[in-house]
Amino acid sequence: MSVVGIIGAGQLARMLALAGLPLGLRFVMLDPAEAPCAAALGTHLRAGYDDRAQLARLARMCDVVTYEFEKVPDESVAFLAESVTVRPGAASLAAARDRLREKTLFCDLEIPTPRFAPVDSRAELDRAVATIGLPAVLKTRTLGYDGKGQEVLRRLDDVSAAWASLGGVPLLLEAHVRFQREVSVIGVRDRRGHCRFYPLAENRHHDGILRLSRSRPGDRLESQAQEFARRLLEHLGHVGALTLELFQEGDVLLANEMAPRVHNSGHWTIEGAVTSQFENHLRALLDWPLGDTAAVGYSAMINLIGEIPGPSGVVAVPGAHLHLYGKEPRAGRKLGHVTASASTAARLEDRLQRLLRVTGPREPEAPKHERPAGRVPARSAP
Amino acid sequence: MSVVGIIGAGQLARMLALAGLPLGLRFVMLDPAEAPCAAALGTHLRAGYDDRAQLARLARMCDVVTYEFEKVPDESVAFLAESVTVRPGAASLAAARDRLREKTLFCDLEIPTPRFAPVDSRAELDRAVATIGLPAVLKTRTLGYDGKGQEVLRRLDDVSAAWASLGGVPLLLEAHVRFQREVSVIGVRDRRGHCRFYPLAENRHHDGILRLSRSRPGDRLESQAQEFARRLLEHLGHVGALTLELFQEGDVLLANEMAPRVHNSGHWTIEGAVTSQFENHLRALLDWPLGDTAAVGYSAMINLIGEIPGPSGVVAVPGAHLHLYGKEPRAGRKLGHVTASASTAARLEDRLQRLLRVTGPREPEAPKHERPAGRVPARSAP
Repeated sequence: MSVVGIIGAGQLARMLALAGLPLGLRFVMLDPAEAPCAAALGTHLRAGYDDRAQLARLARMCDVVTYEFEKVPDESVAFLAESVTVRPGAASLAAARDRLREKTLFCDLEIPTPRFAPVDSRAELDRAVATIGLPAVLKTRTLGYDGKGQEVLRRLDDVSAAWASLGGVPLLLEAHVRFQREVSVIGVRDRRGHCRFYPLAENRHHDGILRLSRSRPGDRLESQAQEFARRLLEHLGHVGALTLELFQEGDVLLANEMAPRVHNSGHWTIEGAVTSQFENHLRALLDWPLGDTAAVGYSAMINLIGEIPGPSGVVAVPGAHLHLYGKEPRAGRKLGHVTASASTAARLEDRLQRLLRVTGPREPEAPKHERPAGRVPARSAP
Repeated sequence: MSVVGIIGAGQLARMLALAGLPLGLRFVMLDPAEAPCAAALGTHLRAGYDDRAQLARLARMCDVVTYEFEKVPDESVAFLAESVTVRPGAASLAAARDRLREKTLFCDLEIPTPRFAPVDSRAELDRAVATIGLPAVLKTRTLGYDGKGQEVLRRLDDVSAAWASLGGVPLLLEAHVRFQREVSVIGVRDRRGHCRFYPLAENRHHDGILRLSRSRPGDRLESQAQEFARRLLEHLGHVGALTLELFQEGDVLLANEMAPRVHNSGHWTIEGAVTSQFENHLRALLDWPLGDTAAVGYSAMINLIGEIPGPSGVVAVPGAHLHLYGKEPRAGRKLGHVTASASTAARLEDRLQRLLRVTGPREPEAPKHERPAGRVPARSAP
C-alpha cells in the first residue's frame, strides 16, 4: 500500500485523499493548522512548512510527497527531495511561485502573455508605466492569491497609491488585458512523458475569487491552450497535474499564470470527467498509467464562498453534486463547491441558473474590459 | 452538520462515509472489530451489536442511525429507536433477517417466489421434500450469506446429510429454480413515500459469492422487478435503500431475497449512475430530496475476492475505477471492486473482459440450470 505525503491539508488535500482512499492509498499531511479540513482523512503532522524535523518524518513515512499550493518554501522541497521523491519537482514549484520567473518562462516557451516588467523601486515603476502604458496591474511577485497583492493602475494619479500599498517587496507591472474570457486548462504528465489534457474550462470571478467554471469540451481555443500547457509540462519535466490560466483577447490566448497542481477550475472533473484531476494527479505521482480525461456530458462548478447553503436545497437540483470541505464559514472563504452535470448543454445551463439562485450571489457578470473594484483576475488560492 | 450512525463499519459503511463526507456529514460507527475498514472515516465505537451502553452512546451522538447488514439484533434496533431515528425501520429489518418471514411477505404482496416450506424437524423436512419435490435447497432461516447455511438436495439420499449438516436451527426448504439469470433491483424510498429505482443489474456468482454485476438499463424485465421492489418499499414503510434479488425463469421473475440496505450489486452506481446508491441512501435518511437514479453510459462491476491485483494493471484499462476497502487479504473475502464504464455496450464488454483477465478468475459461467458444487445463488454478505 502506497503512502502519499501532502504539504498542506486544505480542501485540495482533502479531495486528493477522497480520490486516493478507494485506490488503496494512505495519506500523511503536514500542515501548521490545528485541525485542517483534510486532516481526518489521514495522518496529520502539525508543523510549519519549514520544520526540518517534521519534514524528515514526512519523508520517512511516505513513498512520494506532493503539495497542494505554491507557498511551500523552495528550501523545504529541496530538503525533502534528498530523501523522498517529490512531485511535481522543484523546477515547477520555482516557476509558479514567482510571477517574474513564470512570465519569463512563458516568453521562453513562446507562450503569449501580457507585457510585463519587474519593479523593485519607485523609479522602476515609473519607467515600467511609461513602457507598458495604462491601464496596468501592479502585482507582488510572490504569495498573491484571490486578488490579494494586486493594484490596478488606471491613471498616472494611481501610481503613488499603488506604490504605497505594495512597494517594498519585489513587484511586477503587467499590461491590463481587455479580455473577453478567462479560461484554464489542466494537463497531467507522467514520469515517462505521457501527457493528458482536460477540456478547457471557462471561469468567472466575483470579488477576485473564482465563482463559476464551465467545462467547454471542444472549445475552438482548446487545442491552443493545451499546446501551451504541453510546452510547460515538457520543459519543466513536470510530473503530476499543472494548471494554466489564460485570458482570451479576440482570438488570442494570453497566459496569465500557472499552478503546479490540481486546481479549483478542475473540480468539475470529479463527476464530469472519466478520471478526475485528483485521481490523475495521484496516478502520475505513483507511476500508474494516466486515466482518460474526456468529459462525461456537460458540467460546471460553482464555488461556495463565505456561507454554506442548505444542502437539501442544493441536492434538489437534478444532477447537482455537493462538495463541502468541512471548514468553518468566514467571509471570502472557499467552503465547498457544487458541480452541476447534464447530458445536454441547455439542460446544464438551466440547472446552473437554479443552483446559482440557491447558492447565493447570482452569476458574476462577464468581464467588461475593466474590472470594477481595483481587482484583476486573481491567482487562485488552493 | 448532521451526524449519521452506522451499525457495522465494513465496506458498505466505508462507501457510505466516502459518499457522505463531501455532503458535509459526519459518521459514528459501532463495530466490535478492532480496526474495521470504515473506522478511519469517522468515530469508531468498538462494541458488540448488543452493547446497550454503547448503543445509547451512539444514539446520543447521532441524528439518525442506519446499519450495513441484517445481523444487527432486533432488540438493539428497538432499543435505539427509543431515543434516535433508525432507518430503515424495524419492519424492514425483521422481514429481511428471516427467510420465512421474507418469503411469506413476498406471497402476501403477490411477488412470485420459489415454493417453500418451513422445516423445524426431520419429519417436517421429509414432508416438505414430498410437497416441494427435488431438487430443492435447504437453508437456515437466519444468518446465511455468500452460500453459507445452504445445502442442495438433488436426490432423496441427500436428505439425511443435509439434515445432519443444518438441522437443529429453524430451516426452510425451497424449490430449486432452473433460472436463466439472476438479477437485482435497488429502490430507494424517502419518508414522504417518493421512490426511485436503479436500473436492473444482472449478477454472476462464483463459489457462492457475487463476482460480476452488469447494469442493464431498459432490460425488458426491469419494470416488473421495480414494481416488486415498490410493493416492498411501500408495505414496509421503508426509508432508505432496499435491494431485491430475483431469478429469471423463462419470462418470469421469482424473488429470491431482499436486503434492507445498499448492496454489492449496486456498487456500479458510484460512477455509473447520476446519484450513487450510497448518496441516495443517505439522502433518504436525512429527509433530503432523492437524486436521479438514471445510468450514465454503460457500467459493470467486478468484485475483488481473496486477493488484490496490482492497481496499476487495473487502472490501465480505460474507464476502470478501482475501489479497495482497506481489508487484509484472506481467501473468499471481498477486498474491493472495480467498476468498468463506457459509452457503448460493446466497449464496456471489451473493457470488462480485459478487467476480468487482470483481476483473477475469468468470468463465471452463466447458470446451467444446476449449480455444480452444492451451492445456490447466495445471500450476499455486506
